Amino acid sequence: MTNTANKPRHLLSIEDLNYSDIEHLFQLTDSMIDKDTLALKKMASLDGVTVMSLFFEPSTRTRTSFEIAARRLSADYYHIDIKTSATHKGESLLDTVYNLQAMQADMFIVRHNVGGTPPFIAQTVAPHVSVINAGDGSNAHPTQALLDMYTIRHHKGNFENLSVAIVGDVFHSRVARSQLQALTTLGVKDIRVIGPQVLIPKDVEHKGVTVFHDIESGLQEADVVVTLRLQKERFANPQLPTEEEYFNQFGLTGQRLALAKPDAIVMHPGPMNRGVEIASDVADGAQSVILQQVTFGVATRMAVMSYLR
Amino acid sequence: MTNTANKPRHLLSIEDLNYSDIEHLFQLTDSMIDKDTLALKKMASLDGVTVMSLFFEPSTRTRTSFEIAARRLSADYYHIDIKTSATHKGESLLDTVYNLQAMQADMFIVRHNVGGTPPFIAQTVAPHVSVINAGDGSNAHPTQALLDMYTIRHHKGNFENLSVAIVGDVFHSRVARSQLQALTTLGVKDIRVIGPQVLIPKDVEHKGVTVFHDIESGLQEADVVVTLRLQKERFANPQLPTEEEYFNQFGLTGQRLALAKPDAIVMHPGPMNRGVEIASDVADGAQSVILQQVTFGVATRMAVMSYLR
Amino acid sequence: MTNTANKPRHLLSIEDLNYSDIEHLFQLTDSMIDKDTLALKKMASLDGVTVMSLFFEPSTRTRTSFEIAARRLSADYYHIDIKTSATHKGESLLDTVYNLQAMQADMFIVRHNVGGTPPFIAQTVAPHVSVINAGDGSNAHPTQALLDMYTIRHHKGNFENLSVAIVGDVFHSRVARSQLQALTTLGVKDIRVIGPQVLIPKDVEHKGVTVFHDIESGLQEADVVVTLRLQKERFANPQLPTEEEYFNQFGLTGQRLALAKPDAIVMHPGPMNRGVEIASDVADGAQSVILQQVTFGVATRMAVMSYLR
Repeated sequence: MTNTANKPRHLLSIEDLNYSDIEHLFQLTDSMIDKDTLALKKMASLDGVTVMSLFFEPSTRTRTSFEIAARRLSADYYHIDIKTSATHKGESLLDTVYNLQAMQADMFIVRHNVGGTPPFIAQTVAPHVSVINAGDGSNAHPTQALLDMYTIRHHKGNFENLSVAIVGDVFHSRVARSQLQALTTLGVKDIRVIGPQVLIPKDVEHKGVTVFHDIESGLQEADVVVTLRLQKERFANPQLPTEEEYFNQFGLTGQRLALAKPDAIVMHPGPMNRGVEIASDVADGAQSVILQQVTFGVATRMAVMSYLR
Repeated sequence: MTNTANKPRHLLSIEDLNYSDIEHLFQLTDSMIDKDTLALKKMASLDGVTVMSLFFEPSTRTRTSFEIAARRLSADYYHIDIKTSATHKGESLLDTVYNLQAMQADMFIVRHNVGGTPPFIAQTVAPHVSVINAGDGSNAHPTQALLDMYTIRHHKGNFENLSVAIVGDVFHSRVARSQLQALTTLGVKDIRVIGPQVLIPKDVEHKGVTVFHDIESGLQEADVVVTLRLQKERFANPQLPTEEEYFNQFGLTGQRLALAKPDAIVMHPGPMNRGVEIASDVADGAQSVILQQVTFGVATRMAVMSYLR
Repeated sequence: MTNTANKPRHLLSIEDLNYSDIEHLFQLTDSMIDKDTLALKKMASLDGVTVMSLFFEPSTRTRTSFEIAARRLSADYYHIDIKTSATHKGESLLDTVYNLQAMQADMFIVRHNVGGTPPFIAQTVAPHVSVINAGDGSNAHPTQALLDMYTIRHHKGNFENLSVAIVGDVFHSRVARSQLQALTTLGVKDIRVIGPQVLIPKDVEHKGVTVFHDIESGLQEADVVVTLRLQKERFANPQLPTEEEYFNQFGLTGQRLALAKPDAIVMHPGPMNRGVEIASDVADGAQSVILQQVTFGVATRMAVMSYLR
């Protein structure tokens, strides 16, 4: 990252970044935000750059975050509405991408329900075009993980001696997958995942992660508690309990949070299911940094876009 | 309004404004528009301000009017597409609002089919954030009423001695509700509502308003005739006649308009049902100021946004 | 065009333009694009001009092309979402147009599935408002034809001695209709249309066009081969063969393209049905200029918008 020659062109996965890349992105993020007020800055650094968002999966939150980031950097931002686009007229995904590239897009923000789509696009675009993965299937969501790490760094300073617990549906979560990679790269020694067996990937322990099936043990003395969204459609799985039972077993309540360190922070990538994975009073409580994550999300995306140009 | 300390933060209802507030808004509106050509101005007064529109009810006309207003003031404008937003993923309305606030929105333009939603949001946003009600249920539509009053003032100078007749579905109309409040605040002594019994609110006479169930009596010597949109779905009500019968009884025709003063102006908030509440030749006739209302609508919204900052 | 007094206000059809008009537009297009890199320029020539796109037929490609063009000229661009607009509440098309005009639109970009709609709108707008036809029914698509001609000029220099072959569904194609007019106006002496009888308009030969029902004869020594999109829904017509048979009879393959001149260029207005009207290797081959058409499309639309102001 200090070596411009090795500067990546795309951000597809946290695995593309080493420790110093992430550290460099943190510093860039610092420069996007007023240190005292956390007000997002506005600057001309992407003036004349054309950024297009291609969301094949509906999203307002992430899309708006990227749009604000692009426009605060003075990029020309275009949202491509896939519902009415030529891919609906039988055109291939790559033909759509090539067309937008011919209209001189410089950067694509891609979300797709099929894992691997953003890397697939990145392989074929012109050498000056960048691709940012804004979430693909259950594969990766690197800007979410970066903003989460930035939030942890904001509150905890450094990473090595932290205990970080991730609670919930790790199995289906691209957010968790990217978070685990980032925490590992940043040297966190005590990473825990907590959830029912059916929602924890089988290979996760091989990667230095400790698995807990009861939340009370998993939260002991944690510095950071990350709750994950549990999609309602999962409850169709007969191996899962009802929403109410799930909350009883794994919901983050004030009582359970008290098992973590007194200054532990509570995070959630949103959108939250209050009363399913997290109790409302915890979501809104003094230890919650959930809305700060959102603000840091815009700043992180500003940093990533600046960095790739 | 001359007293900045009392300057309101939100515009939720006409009831929040007193006579001098409205007068001040009229003067601000004057400054947004070229006096001779009625060309809308462009200025930098909201440069750096982030305005987001949150429309939970479909609308192009009002939304576009607000978007033009915001952008002519150099605000950063974002339209949040509710159809694809997180509220569809089970997130609560307030969590959506808090998230957008964390992305550093300074102003929300809210339309919702449930009355009371904009005030509910206004109660919970951060102290520096403004909320403008762009129509909530059958409750209020204050910017529409303000632009209507501005249109009357443009043509009639002052309000005291005017006779203003509102014709049609007053019962379901947030526009009429806000207009009646504004006319009262501005001191109009002769306010009339005209329509079939089932479309006139029972309590309206207590507020100094005269009710007419035949349009010919109601229009006598009126200075201003406001026609209201009658939503097609109302005709499912067996107490209402058919569209054709409704037009025969309450449609504003040239013959009926001749009962008003010769210089009476004809208004409609749009979109019009030609041949239901208004005859086409009246809508397009010399006394119609319906399209001027649209132009003044942008100027009024520019004034309101400027005023709340 | 050199005569400003005769400068057209609208672009509705290629038939509105004479030879020198088109030549003037070519030169304007030259000025929108860097000669060497084909990079699109950014300029202030439409600063303060309000451009609104009104697409009554879904499109992302053409709409985005116009949006990029408008914004690269510094216009204020608004996309009007027809799905949620007042025309859905029973408002007439013209009332929608008049309302947007009252919000001080200076230019409308109109696409409609009913031929004749853009001219109909153009007849009624205020004298300072321009209308650009972005495709109406099977009638006309003048900016597409202009960008196609610009692409031909870019590769072939001049038009008189060219042989241009248009292959496919000429009957339903507004693109082909506008192309034929443009080729005629530009003096192309050898224009050929190739396709099954049911897809070739009966009157096309009267206009100096040669009809071929076998592609091998039609392509002989052609300088330019234009393939047309064949809409999947056409195959419901029992007079048409299946997709596979159609490709066997009329699909542009490498073998067939070899019958044209060695330096023949291959064009397609997009979106392509690979394996129906064109073989993938031809679409992506050395003779294909399909993606250049897209880039020139933005430049052409910049030229048209500049020209009409």
